Amino acid sequence: MADTHPVYAKIEGPIVMIGFGSIGKGTWPLIERHFDYDHDRFTVIEPDARQHDFLREQGLAFDDTALTPDNYREVLGRLLEPGKGFCVNLSVDTSSLDLMKFCREIGVPYIDTVVEPWAGYYFGTTDNAKRTNYALRQAVRDEKAANSGGTTAVSCCGANPGMVSWFVKEGLLTLAKDTGHDATAPSDRAGWAKLMQSLGVKGVHIAERDTQVRLEPRPRGVFVNTWSVEGFISEGFQPAELGWGTHEPWFPENAHRQEEGCRAAIWMERPGAVTRVHTWCPTPGPQFGYLVTHNEAVSISDYYTVGEGHDPEFRPTCHYAYHPCDDAVLSLHEMFGSGETQTEHHILGEDEIVEGIDELGVLLYGHEKNALWFGSRLSNEEAKTLAPYQNATGLQVTSAVLAGMVWALENPNAGIVESDEMDHARCLEVQRPYLGPVEAHYTDWTPLQDRWELFDENLDTDEPWAFRNVLAT
Amino acid sequence: MADTHPVYAKIEGPIVMIGFGSIGKGTWPLIERHFDYDHDRFTVIEPDARQHDFLREQGLAFDDTALTPDNYREVLGRLLEPGKGFCVNLSVDTSSLDLMKFCREIGVPYIDTVVEPWAGYYFGTTDNAKRTNYALRQAVRDEKAANSGGTTAVSCCGANPGMVSWFVKEGLLTLAKDTGHDATAPSDRAGWAKLMQSLGVKGVHIAERDTQVRLEPRPRGVFVNTWSVEGFISEGFQPAELGWGTHEPWFPENAHRQEEGCRAAIWMERPGAVTRVHTWCPTPGPQFGYLVTHNEAVSISDYYTVGEGHDPEFRPTCHYAYHPCDDAVLSLHEMFGSGETQTEHHILGEDEIVEGIDELGVLLYGHEKNALWFGSRLSNEEAKTLAPYQNATGLQVTSAVLAGMVWALENPNAGIVESDEMDHARCLEVQRPYLGPVEAHYTDWTPLQDRWELFDENLDTDEPWAFRNVLAT
Ligand SMILES: NC(=O)c1ccc[n+]([C@@H]2O[C@H](COP(=O)([O-])OP(=O)(O)OC[C@H]3O[C@@H](n4cnc5c(N)ncnc54)[C@H](O)[C@@H]3O)[C@@H](O)[C@H]2O)c1
Ligand SMILES: NC(=O)c1ccc[n+]([C@@H]2O[C@H](COP(=O)([O-])OP(=O)(O)OC[C@H]3O[C@@H](n4cnc5c(N)ncnc54)[C@H](O)[C@@H]3O)[C@@H](O)[C@H]2O)c1
Repeated sequence: MADTHPVYAKIEGPIVMIGFGSIGKGTWPLIERHFDYDHDRFTVIEPDARQHDFLREQGLAFDDTALTPDNYREVLGRLLEPGKGFCVNLSVDTSSLDLMKFCREIGVPYIDTVVEPWAGYYFGTTDNAKRTNYALRQAVRDEKAANSGGTTAVSCCGANPGMVSWFVKEGLLTLAKDTGHDATAPSDRAGWAKLMQSLGVKGVHIAERDTQVRLEPRPRGVFVNTWSVEGFISEGFQPAELGWGTHEPWFPENAHRQEEGCRAAIWMERPGAVTRVHTWCPTPGPQFGYLVTHNEAVSISDYYTVGEGHDPEFRPTCHYAYHPCDDAVLSLHEMFGSGETQTEHHILGEDEIVEGIDELGVLLYGHEKNALWFGSRLSNEEAKTLAPYQNATGLQVTSAVLAGMVWALENPNAGIVESDEMDHARCLEVQRPYLGPVEAHYTDWTPLQDRWELFDENLDTDEPWAFRNVLAT
Repeated sequence: MADTHPVYAKIEGPIVMIGFGSIGKGTWPLIERHFDYDHDRFTVIEPDARQHDFLREQGLAFDDTALTPDNYREVLGRLLEPGKGFCVNLSVDTSSLDLMKFCREIGVPYIDTVVEPWAGYYFGTTDNAKRTNYALRQAVRDEKAANSGGTTAVSCCGANPGMVSWFVKEGLLTLAKDTGHDATAPSDRAGWAKLMQSLGVKGVHIAERDTQVRLEPRPRGVFVNTWSVEGFISEGFQPAELGWGTHEPWFPENAHRQEEGCRAAIWMERPGAVTRVHTWCPTPGPQFGYLVTHNEAVSISDYYTVGEGHDPEFRPTCHYAYHPCDDAVLSLHEMFGSGETQTEHHILGEDEIVEGIDELGVLLYGHEKNALWFGSRLSNEEAKTLAPYQNATGLQVTSAVLAGMVWALENPNAGIVESDEMDHARCLEVQRPYLGPVEAHYTDWTPLQDRWELFDENLDTDEPWAFRNVLAT
């Protein structure tokens, strides 16, 4: 039935995919399906020998060089062709900023799913402010400011960061319609920010619950996850971080403001993956999520800011509230309890998962209807019928990469952009066939509800949605 | 091979077992095996109809009345016979103190595994000081002081509280021997306390790791555990509580001292099952445990106190550091995250468990060999070969009940006693055939080791074993 899939564009010249882990392996069949390109000019850069058998079986050309600050210009320069093709970066331990700059220099469209630094960065400095996603993102924003326009480079276009920024917009339009407001999509950033403000939204949780499970009990000493274990451990040990809204009446202990750049976010002196927040998703209702730092927490708070300077008129709070799959919850408990990161890693494959969905959406809160969760509730079972070589989590990411590539090819001179800055309707149009049920759910839950009775948690009862109430004690 | 099991005593008159849950069901075959008694005079009080089929199949007489403050004298008065038999209390929601007093009144030996209150107590008051195990235990100690001697009533004689008090003694003798001290067992409380002090022990973790698992992934909304879910939820929502040692240089925020009674313990304004501590067990090495309140945390700190009054010369810190089975870790995460206790409960049966051990011991720390873990490492597989109707966790408890019953029958006029006050050598002699490998493990781990790098945790580097370092941040 491959012929029923729309082909969105013709890509002339070489496509280079950097990294062929769980996301690369799942993105490849979507590229194959939805673009017209010369298959002989598709090359994967993949240093990990464990992926090579599959690449050989599929007849995919690959280069086993690990990119480094010293070799990336040479390797990419050899594989790419100026002004043509595409560079799809789905690796860890490579600098998104350096790769993006090089691609723009030679006029090759570029996409990634995270602002990744070179190897060693995450654990190499003791200056926690430097280890934030704020710092990583700000460097990309500074590059955009210094070199506006030019070849399109899409920054952070996976599920989250990525797709969830489009869900925020779709969620806002849904909320506008359901509350009798004008539901016409604004045409610029300022318009979107005003819309969020006028609807009374105070903040956004990127509220995710992953219920995917396999039958084998998690072996001790193995970190099990549904996507990059390395990526999750890295971000989990970064400081907890969040976009900081103008409605917040309190400032967390151990938190720090940023002194340079957009100043939209704050960070805390704690690893994100050991910091729990109260949140809500359709399947479980109220649940704990981990306050893991993510690019979108900063970008969304920045994008929806109304007013300038240090004291803007409006800004939403925004952060990730992630309940990973149960095996990852146990892996985190083991990791922080032992103080050692597990050296054995396992990503749950689509065929060993016996049940579960990745429920990933945005919880827009604080408005007249209290809270709206808008997102994808994709089961692994459904994912397997939609595209090969990936579980539900993977497909939410890879289909966002696909959408971002389509948008980049349709907008080749947009310069450096984040998902917030793209045409969310077009992107979701491309992505939606891969997302399973995309649903809007209102809830009357607030973080003041269902607290452990009998213990005084020092809550802010005047502002139910204050971060003080969201942060678990 | 039943005839190879020693019969320890003849019990004349009726045996009444209150509660036939996971522990009652496992204790019964041990009573059957190790005592000479009239089987027609064995009665179970069990209100839960789900247990009745098994009771009928086994031909055991039962009464389905739930004991209450209003009926317990009548029901027990009818079933027991003054001056004879035994009352074995293995229920939840009954007052250990009231039942024990009544049994002593009519001269019937009594045993339980926890100081349990009547239904409603755990969640019925907002005065957290009253909901502590300190308060529950102190009431029993006050009764002992007011009415010393008389018919033996053994309080809190399961695995922990219970067996672990015997392990503390055996561990101290092991440590004395291994460090060239006099390893003769002291003959009284003061002697034991002096021994602990002279060995330089600063405190004791009741350090447990339960690795028992089944193949079925934990269903959402079901609290899964290896013993009473109701019991675990109740104690998990009590305040975190610990015996407070004289070496502690710091006092935790949100902690309270006790104003009456032995004053050996403090409690914190947090539920125990959401309060994590750094601890150590042989299988995992360093791990998180939950600081769930337990009777032994108070009794051990009290028992090993040297000196009198508010400012004793020596007292060890003592607390539970419990890593329950993985399904229980997930159940706790769900429960505290949703703010609702699950209404569906499941205790893992010995036949569905596919792997795992209950590793339950005492970690004696702070001395010249740093730390010694002494305990039982019983696998479910081995447990099944030793006795029917229970998993490894159950057998560690029921064999302690057996040992306590033997000791009570051999010491019928000892009055109210705790496990610390019993002959640990005799009790372990009875229990040991059911404990699997009972081992001593030294470790050079301290809570200062293997912390998450990159974050300042404000540790006390002068006193590695300070509770400040043990409490997870
Ligand atoms: N935005 C999102 O929603 C989202 C979701 C999932 C993953 N991601 C990101 O996507 C990336 C890939 O995720 P994944 O699950 O496929 O990870 P993975 O760990 O499965 O794969 C990463 C791949 O990068 C390769 N690699 C490592 N060092 C390299 C180097 N120096 N040069 C080239 N390749 C190198 C590895 O060999 C590996 O195959 C990660 O950065 C992850 O954080 C983003
Ligand atoms: N010291 C230890 O090491 C240890 C270990 C495990 C359990 N325990 C304690 O032992 C007790 C039993 O544990 P379990 O795992 O068998 O629990 P369980 O929940 O499986 O069984 C408890 C039983 O008590 C019965 N019961 C409830 N209300 C009653 C009432 N009013 N009158 C009479 N019976 C009543 C229930 O019907 C149930 O069968 C609990 O109090 C638990 O805390 C102690």
